[in-house]
Amino acid sequence: MATALVTLLTDFGLEDYYVAAMKGTILRLAPQARLVDLSHQVPPGDVASGAFLLAAAVPTYPRGTLHLAVVDPGVGSRRRLLALRTPEALFLAPDNGLLSQFLDQGEVRHVDRPDLYLDAPGDTFHGRDRFAPVAAALLRGEPFKALGRVVTDPSRLAVAAPERAPHALSGEVLHVDRFGNLVTNIPAAWLPAATLRATVAGRHEVHHRVSHYAELPPGEPGILIGSLGLVELALKQDSLAEVWDVRRGVPVAIAWERPGE
Amino acid sequence: MATALVTLLTDFGLEDYYVAAMKGTILRLAPQARLVDLSHQVPPGDVASGAFLLAAAVPTYPRGTLHLAVVDPGVGSRRRLLALRTPEALFLAPDNGLLSQFLDQGEVRHVDRPDLYLDAPGDTFHGRDRFAPVAAALLRGEPFKALGRVVTDPSRLAVAAPERAPHALSGEVLHVDRFGNLVTNIPAAWLPAATLRATVAGRHEVHHRVSHYAELPPGEPGILIGSLGLVELALKQDSLAEVWDVRRGVPVAIAWERPGE
Amino acid sequence: MATALVTLLTDFGLEDYYVAAMKGTILRLAPQARLVDLSHQVPPGDVASGAFLLAAAVPTYPRGTLHLAVVDPGVGSRRRLLALRTPEALFLAPDNGLLSQFLDQGEVRHVDRPDLYLDAPGDTFHGRDRFAPVAAALLRGEPFKALGRVVTDPSRLAVAAPERAPHALSGEVLHVDRFGNLVTNIPAAWLPAATLRATVAGRHEVHHRVSHYAELPPGEPGILIGSLGLVELALKQDSLAEVWDVRRGVPVAIAWERPGE
Repeated sequence: MATALVTLLTDFGLEDYYVAAMKGTILRLAPQARLVDLSHQVPPGDVASGAFLLAAAVPTYPRGTLHLAVVDPGVGSRRRLLALRTPEALFLAPDNGLLSQFLDQGEVRHVDRPDLYLDAPGDTFHGRDRFAPVAAALLRGEPFKALGRVVTDPSRLAVAAPERAPHALSGEVLHVDRFGNLVTNIPAAWLPAATLRATVAGRHEVHHRVSHYAELPPGEPGILIGSLGLVELALKQDSLAEVWDVRRGVPVAIAWERPGE
Repeated sequence: MATALVTLLTDFGLEDYYVAAMKGTILRLAPQARLVDLSHQVPPGDVASGAFLLAAAVPTYPRGTLHLAVVDPGVGSRRRLLALRTPEALFLAPDNGLLSQFLDQGEVRHVDRPDLYLDAPGDTFHGRDRFAPVAAALLRGEPFKALGRVVTDPSRLAVAAPERAPHALSGEVLHVDRFGNLVTNIPAAWLPAATLRATVAGRHEVHHRVSHYAELPPGEPGILIGSLGLVELALKQDSLAEVWDVRRGVPVAIAWERPGE
Repeated sequence: MATALVTLLTDFGLEDYYVAAMKGTILRLAPQARLVDLSHQVPPGDVASGAFLLAAAVPTYPRGTLHLAVVDPGVGSRRRLLALRTPEALFLAPDNGLLSQFLDQGEVRHVDRPDLYLDAPGDTFHGRDRFAPVAAALLRGEPFKALGRVVTDPSRLAVAAPERAPHALSGEVLHVDRFGNLVTNIPAAWLPAATLRATVAGRHEVHHRVSHYAELPPGEPGILIGSLGLVELALKQDSLAEVWDVRRGVPVAIAWERPGE
């Protein structure tokens, strides 16, 4: 099912040789590979951030794309290397929750193929020595089922679920983007038509509800529907995260009046 | 006319899912696309910086390249989405001046094709939901003229024009590059053969005139002809912008003696 | 011998138009080129860092890859432009030591082909005006031998060699990676089975010896075999370089007891 398209998500940054070595290895072993970077700027070891980016980006890719995700603080330990096949895509990732959002959509296998791994010094760079050659093998036609046994207990990230009460919603900041916008885990579909009040970190209030950033009055934070269908809080042409000094995990509460009260 | 080559210029950074989602969408809808990053490090919302980078990089690309430029603080507002076709290239960008340098070289149209746009949550990510599918449509053969009506009043950036007097030139810093070199808006062709004196921000003087960085004495700033044919000010192996604490927009004056005075 | 694969290593960063212009020029002159970034985040003018990254990444690439390396503080001066052909790869780089690790593996030539260079303003951007068109010419079939005369005295970086005594090894930090791990220049193959003590910068001691990062107790630095077969010093989920405030060049000494002492 694999096309030649391979995406890469890592926490390797772009100033080291790590991404370049993964790419070189894939291209050496599967010259037809077409490589696309999802991101290499995941904060070091931050599996939750990696999982968020993967969940957000993957649905845009063509059917059959192979997604290689290496945020892997447990590299070299006994953590398993997982392969996942869904109707839409293939994935390779360490068994640490990085694939949480996709695990229920397909079959997970424990990649256990030392014959495919590269003989290389140390045990610190499975991106180059295991993930890359397994990805290349898949591109060259290695059957998914031959990678290893089915896994029924893959690691999952503990996800804080948003909550819904009659006149209130609560959740948290799921992601702070480059612009300092706060992406929450609250589905925008839960928002009523009524006038709202959002409270962030228990102390910052937001009243404006807009459909896009430019609609905001300067300096006034607003609530809008973000590009993932989640409630987002933003400031026009400024970073709300910096102005408020808030980060991922901060609580968000939304409330509104009962009609007639 | 479009080749499969698509460049991307955004202010999305590389730590978010935004660039990855634009690429995924283009590749899903037009698998033959060949994507090249111009830059995604445009400072957030900085249309002038984006326009500078675009103007500098685009002329190096093959005829028929499609340039997708999304620095778009007005996303979701009534600002138009523009398509531009010149003899050399195709462009898609918001109508905010990003294409200023190219507008007079071809035909501009207002892209008005809701049938091509993706149905997606929110109104904050036209890069994924409008620009990417319109780009893919062009790659798949959609005629340029079918994108929408001709626009005769596209937005243009107010550009500070350099000035030329008998023994003096004046302009400003157009761009500070990664090395801290100051690229001015003064054409190098205006420089006389005479000994010069440049004054930056009214207080920093430069006397050395060199042809390349290594020719500069350590610690001495110099005047040279930059790679865009513009007067550039630089320090050897150090950042002149940091040493002087100057940035884009700072005035630059160049003067020389009359022969015989 | 050249495949269409071209890697790029520069100190241009990603926020400028420099990388984009090199890529555009290559693609305009050799549309079949397949471009891969090694890194563009080499610190400005830091030839030694560039040489390290090149040495680490290049061996993973397919035979016949063309590696274009432009960390070039001497651009425009009389420093030569070199081409190197080894049994594995082709290289283009300034003659400043960037290719030190590969010079003895093949034939070096002084590229002297003004007919191939682009006519462009200034003398500050050979990446676009000389390296890119020469790379494109090689991809189009220009014979390596036609690039210029053989060079027998290419510049080499002075490399601090690690030293080996009966019960001690010494060397230095060769590279600090994104995670703050300290990659030394001491071959891991020199390590004895005995219990070790490493001393960094004359004052920081390391006793733990592990095979991978996750094996380290929190807060305790450890010695391990890095992905290049070199001794590496690391902290679990933290930056050892920051905690100790050490950087490249800092001395590393490793000692162990004589059995029976």
